[in-house]
Amino acid sequence: MQTYGLEYWGREDFVIEGGLVKLNVGSKPSLMEIVMELREQGFKGPLLLRFPHLIEKQVKELFNMFSNAISQYHYSGAFKAVFPLKVNHMPHFVLPLVEISKAFKGHYGLEAGSKAELILAMSYIQEGAPITVNGFKDKEMIELGFIASSMGADITLTIEGLSELKSILEVALENNTTGENAKLCPKIGIRVRLHSSGVGIWAKSTGIHAKFGLASTELLEAMRLLEEHALLGQLSMIHFHIGSQISDITPLKKALKEAGNIYAELRKMGAFNLKSVNIGGGLAIEYSQHKHQCERNYTLEEFAGDVVFLLKEIVKNKKELEPNIFIESGRFISASHAVLVAPVLELFSQDYDESILRLKETNPPLVAEMEDLYHNINAKNAIEYLHDSLDHMESLFTLFDLGYIDLQDRSNAEVLGHLIIKKAIGFFRHKDHSDIIRIQEQVQERYLLNCSFFQSLPDYWGLRQNFPVMPLHKLDQEPTRSASLWDITCDSDGEISFNKNKPLFLHEVDVRQEEYFLGFFLVGAYQEVLGMHHNLFTHPTECCVHVHAVGAPEPFSISHILEAQTILDALEDLEYDTKEMERILKQKIEESALLDSEEKKEVLGRLYVMLSENGYLRTLALQEL
Amino acid sequence: MQTYGLEYWGREDFVIEGGLVKLNVGSKPSLMEIVMELREQGFKGPLLLRFPHLIEKQVKELFNMFSNAISQYHYSGAFKAVFPLKVNHMPHFVLPLVEISKAFKGHYGLEAGSKAELILAMSYIQEGAPITVNGFKDKEMIELGFIASSMGADITLTIEGLSELKSILEVALENNTTGENAKLCPKIGIRVRLHSSGVGIWAKSTGIHAKFGLASTELLEAMRLLEEHALLGQLSMIHFHIGSQISDITPLKKALKEAGNIYAELRKMGAFNLKSVNIGGGLAIEYSQHKHQCERNYTLEEFAGDVVFLLKEIVKNKKELEPNIFIESGRFISASHAVLVAPVLELFSQDYDESILRLKETNPPLVAEMEDLYHNINAKNAIEYLHDSLDHMESLFTLFDLGYIDLQDRSNAEVLGHLIIKKAIGFFRHKDHSDIIRIQEQVQERYLLNCSFFQSLPDYWGLRQNFPVMPLHKLDQEPTRSASLWDITCDSDGEISFNKNKPLFLHEVDVRQEEYFLGFFLVGAYQEVLGMHHNLFTHPTECCVHVHAVGAPEPFSISHILEAQTILDALEDLEYDTKEMERILKQKIEESALLDSEEKKEVLGRLYVMLSENGYLRTLALQEL
Repeated sequence: MQTYGLEYWGREDFVIEGGLVKLNVGSKPSLMEIVMELREQGFKGPLLLRFPHLIEKQVKELFNMFSNAISQYHYSGAFKAVFPLKVNHMPHFVLPLVEISKAFKGHYGLEAGSKAELILAMSYIQEGAPITVNGFKDKEMIELGFIASSMGADITLTIEGLSELKSILEVALENNTTGENAKLCPKIGIRVRLHSSGVGIWAKSTGIHAKFGLASTELLEAMRLLEEHALLGQLSMIHFHIGSQISDITPLKKALKEAGNIYAELRKMGAFNLKSVNIGGGLAIEYSQHKHQCERNYTLEEFAGDVVFLLKEIVKNKKELEPNIFIESGRFISASHAVLVAPVLELFSQDYDESILRLKETNPPLVAEMEDLYHNINAKNAIEYLHDSLDHMESLFTLFDLGYIDLQDRSNAEVLGHLIIKKAIGFFRHKDHSDIIRIQEQVQERYLLNCSFFQSLPDYWGLRQNFPVMPLHKLDQEPTRSASLWDITCDSDGEISFNKNKPLFLHEVDVRQEEYFLGFFLVGAYQEVLGMHHNLFTHPTECCVHVHAVGAPEPFSISHILEAQTILDALEDLEYDTKEMERILKQKIEESALLDSEEKKEVLGRLYVMLSENGYLRTLALQEL
Repeated sequence: MQTYGLEYWGREDFVIEGGLVKLNVGSKPSLMEIVMELREQGFKGPLLLRFPHLIEKQVKELFNMFSNAISQYHYSGAFKAVFPLKVNHMPHFVLPLVEISKAFKGHYGLEAGSKAELILAMSYIQEGAPITVNGFKDKEMIELGFIASSMGADITLTIEGLSELKSILEVALENNTTGENAKLCPKIGIRVRLHSSGVGIWAKSTGIHAKFGLASTELLEAMRLLEEHALLGQLSMIHFHIGSQISDITPLKKALKEAGNIYAELRKMGAFNLKSVNIGGGLAIEYSQHKHQCERNYTLEEFAGDVVFLLKEIVKNKKELEPNIFIESGRFISASHAVLVAPVLELFSQDYDESILRLKETNPPLVAEMEDLYHNINAKNAIEYLHDSLDHMESLFTLFDLGYIDLQDRSNAEVLGHLIIKKAIGFFRHKDHSDIIRIQEQVQERYLLNCSFFQSLPDYWGLRQNFPVMPLHKLDQEPTRSASLWDITCDSDGEISFNKNKPLFLHEVDVRQEEYFLGFFLVGAYQEVLGMHHNLFTHPTECCVHVHAVGAPEPFSISHILEAQTILDALEDLEYDTKEMERILKQKIEESALLDSEEKKEVLGRLYVMLSENGYLRTLALQEL
């Protein structure tokens, strides 16, 4: 059975049973049931399904792995975590996450990297849970941090450079919150610029040329400034981040040694309240559908164990306090909770059969030769004849461009070429012939999907990030077509090509007879945040799906359905005067010389319906003409 | 004088005078005057300046180049153009463009690739001007085309595959607009799938594996279907597109030969109303700031001349009508009209001087050696000593990680390392030494810009597209610092690194004393459309700038200022309940045990101000502490 690599990327969140992808929890509903329920309610186009239980699963896993390591090594520091809002700032992810965080009683908080994110964190943070603030900050953003602090929030401003510290000191002086009033001042963290460099495509997060952080010399200057302003007691955390989606554990271990020593040295120099080391984000998840392409070379146990063990060792040597450990995993927490469901609209098959050939009485010599090749191809000569026919096709296309043959001749060349390829593949169906793999790329089926990759998989466009993709059903049938995937944007970049290194095979379906749905998995991190409005396609229709226990009256329930924006709403967001547009459209219809008054009314009615719908595709031709 | 390659990419839109970048038209205002005027009005953060006169210039240039070629070759077909809305769908670009199109009396229209874009086109198209509709279409979108047609619009639906044609026939049958009623049916265009392939990163727009278009066999089937439904008279255009930003003219010429022959053959087969060939978009603009990287190997005259000449030749041979020529240039029309202005917030210099060294009585041996290297480096041994010092630095960092040296030692190593690099550069300042170029990469200045590359330059993130960048002032002073640019997102991808193949040098400035502004040019195509909300940063503050003639009371005027979204608006767009958020924040302040009632009122006031501002940075610390 084709499992589409579920065993590598699926983390037991899903299971294949009876040809369907099912949630591997409670009553185990299939994704198809959920999709069908939504379509019955009238929601067509792409769907983004959120599963709050998968958020909870990840948060628990994160805390478990660290609490196990902490007991194993008898570590005295605490473990805390924050979710970086930049990874997913959508309300129906953030609000469930905050609910889930209650169970971790002040140990699970939020990270903000901009003013808007800080406002979000200040509004929804649970009592006692930490807020960390990374990224560049102006005085206004720092003041916002002071406001949060005065509201009683446990907030740490991570300074990314010395001038940010100077801004903090300025605001502290203006607010009179130095010295004895320091309790109204936020805690201060320092991002350290590590010498050791990371790996992977985000490696530039660290190293001496990194975008963020203070070098040793600047750390010493920061200590001096804090002391001078009687705010050294606010310095409570050092922070580093070696990059997103850490594939190799080695650079993390190097970075921990460096950061651990900096922590110990700063304490020795008088940072008496420095009690936490924040190891940033980067905990990887596995996106690969193929064993040979797996990305992560460590287990979660190893990751947590290394962090706890290395910090313990360093401070033991330097006779310092075992620090609290903070982590800022975003991808690990959010990626798996969301699945994009894309309906297949059409298969652009060029699967010609003989009946479409229109050979003439007398054909151009090369067409006649192709006809011979087609009739005489056999298992022995297949590759040779195939190469000859591709060569002839090329020549015939050139003859057409030069005006020597007509469109019917060219069409015959196309059809014969395809028929020969099909025969050749037939001869090699069960052999592992390298030429056939190459040919499969030539005859791949193109599946047109009702979604926008720019909107829903921006990291595919920008970083060629692989997202696991598979059909939601028909998994008990063999998928026979090598597939490339197209979205509905007018952009040739909106294509996931067939790649022989990670081949995708899908089912032969007639979408005029039956629907066919693909799921893109692990899309809950970054994709919604970075979604682009190419061709004015907006966020797909989204909802939260709650899976019920076995024996419940319903296997699942759906809440918080948020339909894709209507066309008018999308235009209004761009600041178009949609009232004016409606007026103009109405006027144009009313003044049309081509319609009588009855028709005008009817046309206007149809137009209004369309304006109130979203921009994705809906109905395709069903009738064979 | 450093011109930042204006002579390659600037197309005489701008000129450098008196150290300033000025608009090269009318009263020639400088970009700095415009920026200062906006800042006086209170708009901080990044600015997007639109220049409607540069839109008009490009449209005129496009029409001129073709009308010249048409006279030169005594060509009998007409020239028409459409602007593809997907390239820029923002109202303050589209509405001026539509105004400008009036002068071209029905020859300049709009192209739509989705329902929302079609609604836009139907609303704002000028009377008599063409609308073309590309991209995948469902029955609803086709019906919208029929509505446009019944409103009297000159609309052509370009079919991308046979099933789209079947949908059109279905809708035509349902609306009873076949045969004699065909005037209510939109015109039909056919995208042809060309055999010849394109070049450049968008090459996959063409070729037999292209996302769009009909192969010859499908063209024959389309003809049959149209004839059967008495709609052959609607077939009025064939269309192809060989890719965006065509750098090389050769593939276009190949494609024209192929498409021209298809056009002639279809007419011979009875397509009596087929009168237009649409050559798609792709006309390139020059983005390069360096001569050796220029992207376009043809002139505009050559482009237009080739199109007209080749089509003329083909139809002469086949004795057919010279077709009207349609073009869908988007980038060429819109790219130059918009300039992103980004204030520099900070320079992250690590420009240590000796005073910061804190050498101990006894230093670790390698630190002592570095001190020696620093004192004894000279022109002759510079490269050798430099290499030694980099080696020692590396070793000292390792010693720190292993707990052998302390933070002060490490800081001394950093400072000595930088001082040695500085001396080495000094020795080679006026020599073209390859090692020094490498070193400049090590000591580059990092300029922090108040903007988001994800929001404002998404093609830099996704495609590594180069956008010309230069300071708007100080151009009479030599820029001495090799620069890398950072945006304010919390993302290590938000960086344009120094690249020795296209080095960027900027000025040494103290941003606490004087402001420094960079302009990114040619950002008017695709960038606004694809802008991402990373860290919740929204579209920058934008406006239209109208340059007045010499002698006018004012050199320019500003209209349509649209401020960057406020934090609350941005959150509301994501469907957050911002009223609830305000209530929660207020409550948290009121319940705070850390504030008295006077303070609570004051804090609440400050918070409300921030909620009503946009999320970009504003004020930085000014005071030296």
